[in-house]
Amino acid sequence: MIYVTADSLRHFIATIFERAGFSQEDANVSADVLLRADLRGIDSHGAARLSGYIRLIEARRLNPHAKSRVVHEAPSTATLDADGGSGLIAAPMAMEIAIAKAQITGAGFVAIKNSNHFGIAAYHAMKALPHNMIGFAMTNASPLVAPANSIERMLGTNPICLAIPAGRREAVVLDLATAAAANGKLEIAQRLGKTVPEGWIQTASGEPTTDPQGLKQGGSLLPLGGDEAGAYHKGFALGAWVDLFSGPLSGASFGPWVPPFVSFLPVQENQPGEGIGHFVGAWRVDGFRPLADFEKAMETWVDRFKASKPKTGKTVIIPGEPEAAAERDRLLHGIPLVTAVWEDLIGLSKRYDVSMPESIGKAS
Amino acid sequence: MIYVTADSLRHFIATIFERAGFSQEDANVSADVLLRADLRGIDSHGAARLSGYIRLIEARRLNPHAKSRVVHEAPSTATLDADGGSGLIAAPMAMEIAIAKAQITGAGFVAIKNSNHFGIAAYHAMKALPHNMIGFAMTNASPLVAPANSIERMLGTNPICLAIPAGRREAVVLDLATAAAANGKLEIAQRLGKTVPEGWIQTASGEPTTDPQGLKQGGSLLPLGGDEAGAYHKGFALGAWVDLFSGPLSGASFGPWVPPFVSFLPVQENQPGEGIGHFVGAWRVDGFRPLADFEKAMETWVDRFKASKPKTGKTVIIPGEPEAAAERDRLLHGIPLVTAVWEDLIGLSKRYDVSMPESIGKAS
Repeated sequence: MIYVTADSLRHFIATIFERAGFSQEDANVSADVLLRADLRGIDSHGAARLSGYIRLIEARRLNPHAKSRVVHEAPSTATLDADGGSGLIAAPMAMEIAIAKAQITGAGFVAIKNSNHFGIAAYHAMKALPHNMIGFAMTNASPLVAPANSIERMLGTNPICLAIPAGRREAVVLDLATAAAANGKLEIAQRLGKTVPEGWIQTASGEPTTDPQGLKQGGSLLPLGGDEAGAYHKGFALGAWVDLFSGPLSGASFGPWVPPFVSFLPVQENQPGEGIGHFVGAWRVDGFRPLADFEKAMETWVDRFKASKPKTGKTVIIPGEPEAAAERDRLLHGIPLVTAVWEDLIGLSKRYDVSMPESIGKAS
Repeated sequence: MIYVTADSLRHFIATIFERAGFSQEDANVSADVLLRADLRGIDSHGAARLSGYIRLIEARRLNPHAKSRVVHEAPSTATLDADGGSGLIAAPMAMEIAIAKAQITGAGFVAIKNSNHFGIAAYHAMKALPHNMIGFAMTNASPLVAPANSIERMLGTNPICLAIPAGRREAVVLDLATAAAANGKLEIAQRLGKTVPEGWIQTASGEPTTDPQGLKQGGSLLPLGGDEAGAYHKGFALGAWVDLFSGPLSGASFGPWVPPFVSFLPVQENQPGEGIGHFVGAWRVDGFRPLADFEKAMETWVDRFKASKPKTGKTVIIPGEPEAAAERDRLLHGIPLVTAVWEDLIGLSKRYDVSMPESIGKAS
């Protein structure tokens, strides 16, 4: 494990993106999104993904010179065509449009089509917080998850994120993949040679398995709920919601057709829409209630739930609490990168002639 | 099992509500909401609940003469004070306001406070469909569900509902309790003396149990996901979302303070808000995209998911498909009422001097 400062890692990522063709402004916002994942402890979605985005540019699957534009609009709604560019750039732009609409009407929502993966949903939803708004973000993604009762990969891990301001408490931020387990958790188990709990994956024929290699052997991820008794039709319904708002509503592709993140997998022909889709939005708190009254209620809510009686040996956790703690810690002590990611960054550093971020320490 | 026609059951319910003090208009809409649950096969939320609502009126916990009014507003948002009346009346009114706002701005959202239980969420969300809008409805409810890692009842089964028009296909309607299992399923198991799957309930000390009596013995329902391995922190986060939008955002009560539906349980003192809260809304499809393009994509989506490869012996089900099938069937063949519900209705029939709905058949 190698530790780097947030600033030096952000600078490294931005410089790589710029060398790969992004404008300085686009490179900076993209770096900010990836860095935020590393800060918040979502290690699978930060610097670890940088080379994936770069390979998409190199494979001409992601347009580094894209100019997003609004193609459809009403006072509280819009659709943004991301021009085949990066979701790391289009989604923050869409959130700014949603926030501007919510300033005027109380609520704003923007669907995005013709995009690529947008990083962590929480980055986008949390943009609403300084405006005393509730932020909302979802995205579809390449198919890995089978519907309830199916053995076919039809949905991405399709996250839903809400960021809700909470007065003098930390914002309540829920950011959840609608699969039982996100792919990142399987990768960790694979790396460590460990089994995973039943209910995360099924084999190609639909048998439950605890072998994390099951996915690579033609299996699929299971929706939240894990099986019929666990009501995995609900996890499927939530993942379907995300896909329907990201795809059919925006004009992006959907379901099994969503283009893969990894550049070595081909994009299917006869796409029913354009690229990957997202859906973001914002509700202005004082569209519903004076802000001070809301904040007081939120503080009561957070305090009461935090104080709810825990199971022996357990702690009750408010959604977003661990990520906020990680962010505080990593801003102070640096961001840990595993060796595989560090080596990946060395490769990019050489290929694009960019100095590596400065290491500030190591740990085993 | 006794079968009655939809019309005669609707008339019976409306007449009872009217005798209990509702205006004719309020009685009709309330009957329509309950009937829709019976039609859609959500038997726990239809005629079975009628005596519960009536007891709330009799106990002066539900104001039959309530006049809901908008107390806060922006072009795309509003908060409705339900005046201590019925959610069966306030929620449809709120949806009408949301739809009118969405006609103008593309999106409309209404938070409701000072209300009571609103029946099935799908009734409200589905009001958007004839307007070519996507409907949204959620509500908090009396606490039965423990947060992840907790053994205290803090949240209701807090449903999330989305109703999405689908062109020439049936609308996609997802309506899911954020607990692993809604209370109605436990009641069925209790009645039949059966066990329930692990992951539905825990005992008062937080042990997993398959005994459906566990809830009555001080246990709690578990969030969707069922346990730590099943990622029940996600089910908790979803239930928290519903509570935060229904309570702190509207000014209604929230968390463990939400007033109970059953009139024999007291309302806690020092309430942090007023009554039960709901949150409803509508997005106009052509706020994002021409309707015809959206409908074509939805038809492709439904057909492709319906055709996804099933597990041996299973069928892939589109969200809302079983409920739509039940509605078609019950409109044709009548609504089945179990004996306990039938006897409950006989009690109301006598107390309020209203003729029983006509039975059109029996089955064991």
